[in-house]
Amino acid sequence: MKIVESRSEAYAQVAQWRQTGASVGLVPTMGALHAGHLTLAERSTKECDKSVATIFVNPAQFGPREDFSRYPRTLDDDLQGLRDKQTDLVFIPQPEELYPAGFSTYVEPPSVALPLEGVFRPTHFRGVTTIVLKLFNILPATVAYFGQKDFQQLTVIRHMVDDLNIPIRVEGCQTVREPDGLALSSRNRYLSLEQRQTAQSLSRALTAVAKQVGEGILAVEPLEQSMHHILREAGIERIDYACIVDRTTLESLPQLDRPAVALIAAHVGDTRLIDNVLL
Amino acid sequence: MKIVESRSEAYAQVAQWRQTGASVGLVPTMGALHAGHLTLAERSTKECDKSVATIFVNPAQFGPREDFSRYPRTLDDDLQGLRDKQTDLVFIPQPEELYPAGFSTYVEPPSVALPLEGVFRPTHFRGVTTIVLKLFNILPATVAYFGQKDFQQLTVIRHMVDDLNIPIRVEGCQTVREPDGLALSSRNRYLSLEQRQTAQSLSRALTAVAKQVGEGILAVEPLEQSMHHILREAGIERIDYACIVDRTTLESLPQLDRPAVALIAAHVGDTRLIDNVLL
Repeated sequence: MKIVESRSEAYAQVAQWRQTGASVGLVPTMGALHAGHLTLAERSTKECDKSVATIFVNPAQFGPREDFSRYPRTLDDDLQGLRDKQTDLVFIPQPEELYPAGFSTYVEPPSVALPLEGVFRPTHFRGVTTIVLKLFNILPATVAYFGQKDFQQLTVIRHMVDDLNIPIRVEGCQTVREPDGLALSSRNRYLSLEQRQTAQSLSRALTAVAKQVGEGILAVEPLEQSMHHILREAGIERIDYACIVDRTTLESLPQLDRPAVALIAAHVGDTRLIDNVLL
Repeated sequence: MKIVESRSEAYAQVAQWRQTGASVGLVPTMGALHAGHLTLAERSTKECDKSVATIFVNPAQFGPREDFSRYPRTLDDDLQGLRDKQTDLVFIPQPEELYPAGFSTYVEPPSVALPLEGVFRPTHFRGVTTIVLKLFNILPATVAYFGQKDFQQLTVIRHMVDDLNIPIRVEGCQTVREPDGLALSSRNRYLSLEQRQTAQSLSRALTAVAKQVGEGILAVEPLEQSMHHILREAGIERIDYACIVDRTTLESLPQLDRPAVALIAAHVGDTRLIDNVLL
């Protein structure tokens, strides 16, 4: 497994692979890899001739009061995990390599970035679209893999790729969960044992909603109320949102008459967690 | 010369050329081609194995009160000109091909887009960076050619390419002028014979400044005053700017102690003209 820090080296390697006709899979990450990330790496290795991962904690997608500086860094473990999944190349740039002095061009994200996370983390998706576009240019892959746990992020990236005519296919991969349902997240490391229990209520609320829908309840309001109820019962006091929206536009809808998604963002102690389920 | 309207056909052709190792030159235009555009096409043909031009009057770079609907369209002449320069491929998309319903991702241009044109045409460069990035993705060329007549546009595109790590080289090409000095522009067609005379004062003012600098005048204020004076004398009443700035940052500077550029934007009747000279 080759590890590079420089943009030009990374580009040269991927361009050379593409030149020989090889397909290249890309797994962009912020490191602190868990089994969710590693299934992306595994799928990339399985589906593509060559597989590339990136590890970069992107300052542009953190708000001023968010956890950029304390975001977990576990480089040795990350590299071991990627090696195990037969990743061919890992790009680990220094911040100056991607944001040199004078950097000032950003991608203004598509309108699906406005609700949900967009309300609570107003500059987050601008940081995401900008870094993802940059990585797509530095590592011109055939296909890029993203987790569905960050459902709105995946939707934002799909829209950006369509709008800007980026010649990379985007694949969403199913959320990987703990046995009790908790969605894997690098931020789960922040949780105490007790908080870990409380956090489980996110997936419980989503599963309950999916079950209710399966039983024929199609009015959105009572379904959303039931999610709020389960979260509150578990002791969660700060719920950013727990709602059901159109799966493509992320606009709210009164009735489940088209593909939808239920999404939750809630705080457990100082840790902000998100999760979702397709309906 | 192949003419295509569809993004996918355009991409497939350029990608196929690149796959065989051919270099590809790109000349993005809004049509209404003049000898300036055609020198770009000529240079592309000379320097690259394959040469592509685009013709698209980009609505996103026109302001609400600007000349989008009356912008000159001269498709037959344009195609003949490109054929004469041995262009291999011309991409002429319909607006819906590039801006389908729901389009909402834009490129927020770099800070060099803020002064000068940015003050008088506040959404212009956002439209330019967005369409240029889209064309770069649809037509992944080796090198793209732009005229220096639009000096700030060229600077904005260079910064965008650097900031977003776009793997395309940007080449600026010298402004082509009429024998009396008037910079070629598709908008010169709007000018009456009398206005044509008045318009000539832009290049006259710039030449005068360059001469004064050659004679050792290095204080910016008197040089800018001299440009204003020449324009007013010629009967120009509406000067958006006539100023001298740092050639890289486009920031104002009191003294010519580094590479600079003098730029003018002024209205002759209903026609807005721009021109510049390197100092």
